[in-house]
Amino acid sequence: MNSTAQPQITVIGLGSMGFGMALSLQRAGFDVVGCDVSAAGRDRFQAEGGRVAATPAEAAAGSAIVISVVVNAAQTEAVLFGADGCAETMPADAVFISAATMAPDVARGLAARVEATGRHYLDAPISGGAQRAAEGALTILASGSATAFEKAKPALDAMAATLYELGDSAGTGAAFKMINQLLAGVHIAAACEAITFAAKQGLDIRRVYEVITASAGNSWMFENRVPHVLDGDYAPRSAVEIFTKDLGIIMDMARTEKFPVPIASSALQMFMMTAASGMGRDDDASVARLYGRVTGTPLPGDA
Amino acid sequence: MNSTAQPQITVIGLGSMGFGMALSLQRAGFDVVGCDVSAAGRDRFQAEGGRVAATPAEAAAGSAIVISVVVNAAQTEAVLFGADGCAETMPADAVFISAATMAPDVARGLAARVEATGRHYLDAPISGGAQRAAEGALTILASGSATAFEKAKPALDAMAATLYELGDSAGTGAAFKMINQLLAGVHIAAACEAITFAAKQGLDIRRVYEVITASAGNSWMFENRVPHVLDGDYAPRSAVEIFTKDLGIIMDMARTEKFPVPIASSALQMFMMTAASGMGRDDDASVARLYGRVTGTPLPGDA
Repeated sequence: MNSTAQPQITVIGLGSMGFGMALSLQRAGFDVVGCDVSAAGRDRFQAEGGRVAATPAEAAAGSAIVISVVVNAAQTEAVLFGADGCAETMPADAVFISAATMAPDVARGLAARVEATGRHYLDAPISGGAQRAAEGALTILASGSATAFEKAKPALDAMAATLYELGDSAGTGAAFKMINQLLAGVHIAAACEAITFAAKQGLDIRRVYEVITASAGNSWMFENRVPHVLDGDYAPRSAVEIFTKDLGIIMDMARTEKFPVPIASSALQMFMMTAASGMGRDDDASVARLYGRVTGTPLPGDA
Repeated sequence: MNSTAQPQITVIGLGSMGFGMALSLQRAGFDVVGCDVSAAGRDRFQAEGGRVAATPAEAAAGSAIVISVVVNAAQTEAVLFGADGCAETMPADAVFISAATMAPDVARGLAARVEATGRHYLDAPISGGAQRAAEGALTILASGSATAFEKAKPALDAMAATLYELGDSAGTGAAFKMINQLLAGVHIAAACEAITFAAKQGLDIRRVYEVITASAGNSWMFENRVPHVLDGDYAPRSAVEIFTKDLGIIMDMARTEKFPVPIASSALQMFMMTAASGMGRDDDASVARLYGRVTGTPLPGDA
């Protein structure tokens, strides 16, 4: 580690979130080593002056802080314990910060395996989207040991506008994130159901947007996603498949707990229908297109 | 009508909303005649210096503006066309302002019958709760003829902070209100599902409230209703039965339009279960108690 100049930090996963987080860390003065399975992802970061490495094992060597910003638990496990994983190449006292959304018990399991090597694990799901990632203005829902927090702090400060310290062991951050995802998924599906039902009745849906966002029926997601429907713009800011994944995790958790979640279950089925009909990689507001196509209701840009 | 001093306005239905609206109108300088089937409702308004009448027919005589603030379409029809209805006792050029939430086609039907008598009808569902009713700060989602709006304007100005003029015929105001109710109902049920699922996992639900209200999973209803759960206070601000009614109207509308509404349908079933288990007249946040009792999850005040 280059401790006399800029401390080195590793970011594994340079997608829309990880790329922005890596830039925020660079801006804050860190020597960032980026890693991505995709050459295009690595090239994009190099074009911003970043250093890159081809494997997690290589990228993590010499970094006191390793941040993993991959899609799910399986990828996180591969980053740590796969063929070119970093669990044993990180310095002995390093902290691994895991940003992926996953089930709490899976986060606990990964933390235990990392901690068994003597290294530290911070369960740190993120919220806020690509733009706030690039601005260093994420919300981070973190839990872990006092040591993990202490070691992670310089990176967290550079990436987050709001850091919630939610508990002293891995899993609690993940659990909070899953509650957020349950609500977010239901609210997107409900927004799509409602705005398309309004269109079916011949209402001016721009006026509906104006009225609802000023009324008790509003949600953060209604306000954020319905403009995609109004503009007929389904370029993915966040894809349908994120919610088939995250509401799927909710289903697994709920079944394990024997806790019925009928509202989340209905929402998942709508994301599933939308993905099944070929829109899985489109913006999650595409659930409105599904309702529109099934019912013969023309929506802007999808008549 | 006492046209030399304060103009007379009639308010039919002196429940939590109508009572507040009547007071707002008094404060704005109108001579308000109140009417309610309940003697207690009439007495409460008299105690505030209001005049009362025993029947809609009697209350509406001499009022250029008659405002109906009853629970549903059936009561509105009775107010107008029942045994002691006011449709024929209102002055010939009066406007009838209907505030009840109802299906758009029912609103159109009532308007047509009132207009056939030469009088005017404003479809004007309200939103905002009892406190804002008392402050003259409601949101009103109105549609009707230019004449109906013009005649209703002095009363609307006294009752509303925000008046949406949504169309030139009855039914449009009702349709906007139903879209709001679809979302509001889903968001209440989802909030109750999520907060109780969080409790089941052993999370600190006050912390969950803090995190979610600052995150993308937030909704107006989550922010407003979850405090009732945190405080274990189910005194009805708005009762479960309001949403069995309003989501029931959504089901009727959707079936007529052949428009599937699976999310709203799931939410309705949760309000139905809550009402069926004896909490129909309690606060609508009682859906959380239903989830808690079914799953053996202790919630504050309901362990």
